[in-house]
Amino acid sequence: MSGKAFGALDVIDILDPADTRVDDFRDLNSVDRRPDLPTGKGLVIAEGVLVAQRMLASRFRPHAFFGTERRLLELADDLADAGVPYYRASAEVMAEVVGFHLNRGVLGAARRPPELTVPDVLAGARTIAVLEGVNDHENLGSIFRNAAGLGVDAVIFGAGCADPLYRRAVRVSMGHALLVPFAGAQQWPQDLNSLRDNGFRLLAMTPNPAAQTLADVMDGLAGQKVAVLVGAEGPGLTETAMRASDARVRIPMARGTDSLNVATAAALAFYERARSGD
Amino acid sequence: MSGKAFGALDVIDILDPADTRVDDFRDLNSVDRRPDLPTGKGLVIAEGVLVAQRMLASRFRPHAFFGTERRLLELADDLADAGVPYYRASAEVMAEVVGFHLNRGVLGAARRPPELTVPDVLAGARTIAVLEGVNDHENLGSIFRNAAGLGVDAVIFGAGCADPLYRRAVRVSMGHALLVPFAGAQQWPQDLNSLRDNGFRLLAMTPNPAAQTLADVMDGLAGQKVAVLVGAEGPGLTETAMRASDARVRIPMARGTDSLNVATAAALAFYERARSGD
Repeated sequence: MSGKAFGALDVIDILDPADTRVDDFRDLNSVDRRPDLPTGKGLVIAEGVLVAQRMLASRFRPHAFFGTERRLLELADDLADAGVPYYRASAEVMAEVVGFHLNRGVLGAARRPPELTVPDVLAGARTIAVLEGVNDHENLGSIFRNAAGLGVDAVIFGAGCADPLYRRAVRVSMGHALLVPFAGAQQWPQDLNSLRDNGFRLLAMTPNPAAQTLADVMDGLAGQKVAVLVGAEGPGLTETAMRASDARVRIPMARGTDSLNVATAAALAFYERARSGD
Repeated sequence: MSGKAFGALDVIDILDPADTRVDDFRDLNSVDRRPDLPTGKGLVIAEGVLVAQRMLASRFRPHAFFGTERRLLELADDLADAGVPYYRASAEVMAEVVGFHLNRGVLGAARRPPELTVPDVLAGARTIAVLEGVNDHENLGSIFRNAAGLGVDAVIFGAGCADPLYRRAVRVSMGHALLVPFAGAQQWPQDLNSLRDNGFRLLAMTPNPAAQTLADVMDGLAGQKVAVLVGAEGPGLTETAMRASDARVRIPMARGTDSLNVATAAALAFYERARSGD
């Protein structure tokens, strides 16, 4: 069964869960599969057909796929010219290798390319998100999905953020963590000044009722470059980051409520930015 | 150690995990703890201090709390006049009873009061959310949190929705599933007509690029009553529900992206409604 069953696509059947050719997909729940940890192997993993397609379209070039026959059929067109092996296995063999049942049925693996720099991602950008202390992979993934959907050009990471390339973040982002350019600040919060030097107006999101409303602030910034700063749920942005910003901005909240999820708050800011004209 | 240690508050120490007085909190991960299932015991469980406080403020009157000494101190003022027992235990005993380690440290339990009806929740409402096929507890909880934060008065459930009183939904809602009034439609989608008879304009959210934008539609509805209809992520609203609506409404999306999470899409609609004036 092994061999070039799909034209130029290299399909290789994996019958033995111990086969070392699928070691890049082994024990995905173990801590050394956290690319953000010192023990991590650094591989970026895409789960499911849609995320695999987005990985193929990204700068994260996959070097192998591992999946079922059914997902191979769904991905055949995308993989035709990719020049990477597709390790084909049953759902049962996959579960033994991966360490859990994966109902998305296919995985892609990519090594990490060199990180982009802040100047890299600012080039041509008009709207960016700047995150501080967002250490939850699910929130991080949601922010990338919202950024992509609502027209944000890049994401900058300040202090204390989780790795957007961790499997869970990539999955929740629907693969947009691979497509929206991001870079880590080298010096935090001093790098906020370099954003300003690049023409960005820095808006710090806060639940503080004394801040200006999102609609009022964005309305005055049509045609200007904007950076939306959001902090972790709970503590929010540090006072240092707040002070380094140009304006403090709030979402008008109903009486008796305090806050929204950080990814939701970011989505409202991105939406208002697009609505007010960028 | 048992007895009235906190004024009128009835604090009862639980030293033995087998103590039957905490049976309402036992094995919370088991399927019969799903109040939405036929086997479920129907109890509504609040997790953590904030959600416990919101349960105390809601129509879901707790009949018991189970938690650590630390959380008792945090809740003492709220519980002073509640007239319900606080079963106090170590984190270890709690974990044995509950079936997992609970880092929120306190649980409240309430029996279900009679369900509200659609006419009940429409009384006085100007903005409502109508859900169809939202069968994910996390999305449901997020929708309630967003509804509360952004000024939505009530939630109506059409066909195929999960139970907003399941523990996970209540937790993700930050307790707002207990506070925002909700009711299930008796006939779906026929009940949409009764919303219209009550003066609501029905807006069906869709990714269809031919639909009108959120901003355009809401702008024309200031001062009128509005119902925002959202469907499950993926399939979206059924064609039947679409046809029963007054307008199809879309969120302007960036090129190359398709959709947002259902709770995020709902949040944007709620935000725009509040922004355009209700």
